[in-house]
Amino acid sequence: MAQNKIEFLSAKDSEPSNFGWMKGFPPPADKTLSAADGSFFNFPAIRWSVVHMREMLPTQNVSRGLEAPSKLSYDLDKNIDGITFMPWNSKNKMTWEQSLWANYTDGMIIMHKGKVAYERYFSELTEHDVHAVMSLTKSFTGTLASILVAEGTLDENKLVPFYVPELKNSAYGDATVRQVMDMTTALKYSEDYANPKADIWDFSAAGNPLPKPADYKGPNGYYEYLETVKKEGKHGEVFGYKTVNADALGWIISRATNKSVTQLLSEKIWSKIGMEEDAYYQVDGKGIAFAGGGFNAGLRDLARFGELIRNKGMYNGNQIIPAQAVKDIEKGGDKTAFAKSDHPDLKGWSYRNMWWMTENKDGAYAARGVHGQTIYIDPVAEMVIVRMASHPIAANAANDATSLPAYEAVADYLKKKK
Amino acid sequence: MAQNKIEFLSAKDSEPSNFGWMKGFPPPADKTLSAADGSFFNFPAIRWSVVHMREMLPTQNVSRGLEAPSKLSYDLDKNIDGITFMPWNSKNKMTWEQSLWANYTDGMIIMHKGKVAYERYFSELTEHDVHAVMSLTKSFTGTLASILVAEGTLDENKLVPFYVPELKNSAYGDATVRQVMDMTTALKYSEDYANPKADIWDFSAAGNPLPKPADYKGPNGYYEYLETVKKEGKHGEVFGYKTVNADALGWIISRATNKSVTQLLSEKIWSKIGMEEDAYYQVDGKGIAFAGGGFNAGLRDLARFGELIRNKGMYNGNQIIPAQAVKDIEKGGDKTAFAKSDHPDLKGWSYRNMWWMTENKDGAYAARGVHGQTIYIDPVAEMVIVRMASHPIAANAANDATSLPAYEAVADYLKKKK
Repeated sequence: MAQNKIEFLSAKDSEPSNFGWMKGFPPPADKTLSAADGSFFNFPAIRWSVVHMREMLPTQNVSRGLEAPSKLSYDLDKNIDGITFMPWNSKNKMTWEQSLWANYTDGMIIMHKGKVAYERYFSELTEHDVHAVMSLTKSFTGTLASILVAEGTLDENKLVPFYVPELKNSAYGDATVRQVMDMTTALKYSEDYANPKADIWDFSAAGNPLPKPADYKGPNGYYEYLETVKKEGKHGEVFGYKTVNADALGWIISRATNKSVTQLLSEKIWSKIGMEEDAYYQVDGKGIAFAGGGFNAGLRDLARFGELIRNKGMYNGNQIIPAQAVKDIEKGGDKTAFAKSDHPDLKGWSYRNMWWMTENKDGAYAARGVHGQTIYIDPVAEMVIVRMASHPIAANAANDATSLPAYEAVADYLKKKK
Repeated sequence: MAQNKIEFLSAKDSEPSNFGWMKGFPPPADKTLSAADGSFFNFPAIRWSVVHMREMLPTQNVSRGLEAPSKLSYDLDKNIDGITFMPWNSKNKMTWEQSLWANYTDGMIIMHKGKVAYERYFSELTEHDVHAVMSLTKSFTGTLASILVAEGTLDENKLVPFYVPELKNSAYGDATVRQVMDMTTALKYSEDYANPKADIWDFSAAGNPLPKPADYKGPNGYYEYLETVKKEGKHGEVFGYKTVNADALGWIISRATNKSVTQLLSEKIWSKIGMEEDAYYQVDGKGIAFAGGGFNAGLRDLARFGELIRNKGMYNGNQIIPAQAVKDIEKGGDKTAFAKSDHPDLKGWSYRNMWWMTENKDGAYAARGVHGQTIYIDPVAEMVIVRMASHPIAANAANDATSLPAYEAVADYLKKKK
């Protein structure tokens, strides 16, 4: 038995089929999951819930449009499962296939040169489902903002109150849109998920769409909460990964366009590249999409999105979003600001337009969400990896050691293929 | 001013764009609609809500599958708007187009010989939306049951407890599945929407997916409620239109197949005929779909479903559901049992497999839901009409006088076309 470490059921043993969550007509009381009591997000129940969020919460549809889905070409590579890599801080090699189980993977797809090289579903996820992407949502918000900047609809140099006057007296009062996009705002706000008194829980309570408890005195909705965020330090100097920035950006782009984040994502992207499934956002009690973490989508559609970004906004020969919007992501963020933040495992990285820039030799970058959600783009390897997962530990520090070196190993393998 | 009659805003004046429901980031407090306080279902707010149910409530997706939508052929007929008819109890003729406004229509589509002859969207509905179909849901439940009977999976002669032992001590204890399918069960249960003490409100409270109030002592979920329904009278003699029968039938078909109503509808129909949009069900707090009234779907897809039924289970040349399942609907129900029920305007009608049989000269029949939802099938005229609406008065008695004769007039017109 490990010391100082909680032991969790393995990926195999924690599969929902072993528990029967929400199975039966009606499900037994001890197998009934609900957003009201929070039971749906505890491990191992979370392994079921990540594929069923809308069954417990109000949502807004992100329409794929009404056309036929775009066809994905396949060139499956059976060698990928056997690719080995050295996990960080380990003396033992691991295979790609082993890493999937180590990371509680629900779905894995690898695109190489625009074709599907690898595709697997585990646990509760199938090709017909959509999965909660958690904070990977932020990269959609950041991409939308980057599109609007490229189109000239959004001025990144403006102060936030230019678009959202309600934020004048908050920490955002003297922050620029660019600082919000890169999360270099200086906020008195803690996002330590392990601390039950962290501000993130107050933010969650404000955004919970279920009726507030009778004794609730806090803000109602994500935006009311944002008005209460206070400044601590100086904007523009330190990268501080805080979900509120993504929702502030959602507010900004909605005001700049008079369109909801949901509508923007459908209009700019989801209805434009032949997605095969509608996606959706969780919303607060006022119908505001959770731009910091409420998006849910299908594995293949996330791969299509990854391809759109890898190809600088082109999809099947058409320029869908401005190339400049992607170039502005790929140029990367402020490494000095990132180095001052608390990400000891991510040395040399930066953060730009709500994307995580590895700054590695291939210039790979990623959208990342808790419990293991990832879109990982390696431009040199012409590779897009999408992983959906339901790791028992929220923070990605728990799975990066067996993920990031695995992605690099697959990229190196693919680069050698002719 | 009319006496003894509430005056409502007109269809035009009650359009959501005149009010700004849920518009703005965030919407103003007096324009915010919520399922928690019931505000979303009051007229005129309901005109917005019928297109946005999932934004306020948990839902289950009815997948259309991942293939391309089936193509609908168009042969639009501009003469339809001018077709006149005599509304019931009226001395003045009305045109088809006038009837749409009189009935607070949100969407209207007419299929003739398999082609779209008429299609219009009003108020909050567009081709990209789905609309709450209210009790029209029951006809889906009844059709699924009819399919299962035709396939031999469900025995309509069995007593209900054969499939659902939990209902042994309820009114359903000695009712047959057939009696449930045709709503000739004898239940001590009132569904008078105008009476705030009617049982339907207790049933709704049980099925409400939001957390129960602290002082709530009633059943939790649709199925727990069904266990409490008591018998009053003798089964099989009188048609009694009661929503609980549809949910009892949902429970029966789920137990007979070990599949949810949601899954059954997707597997048997929604993923089989090239629907263009996923549909969805509202669910209770245990994830049980509301088989009596919780379905939401797109206008064109409801037309596709209507065509499937009109063509005795064939769609685009393929037998999708057993012809016998449709023949068993079309043979109609017990007219004597119907005549004993309280539907003075629907003389000579019957009710079969949760479809309303007009028993008119064309053998037309309909799926019907409150506030004006209709799928109306006229086999002789080779016509399917789908209307989505948000009439201020729930009961269809308020719109039948300007709807049913209009449908017959269009059918007569189409029969004369060669």
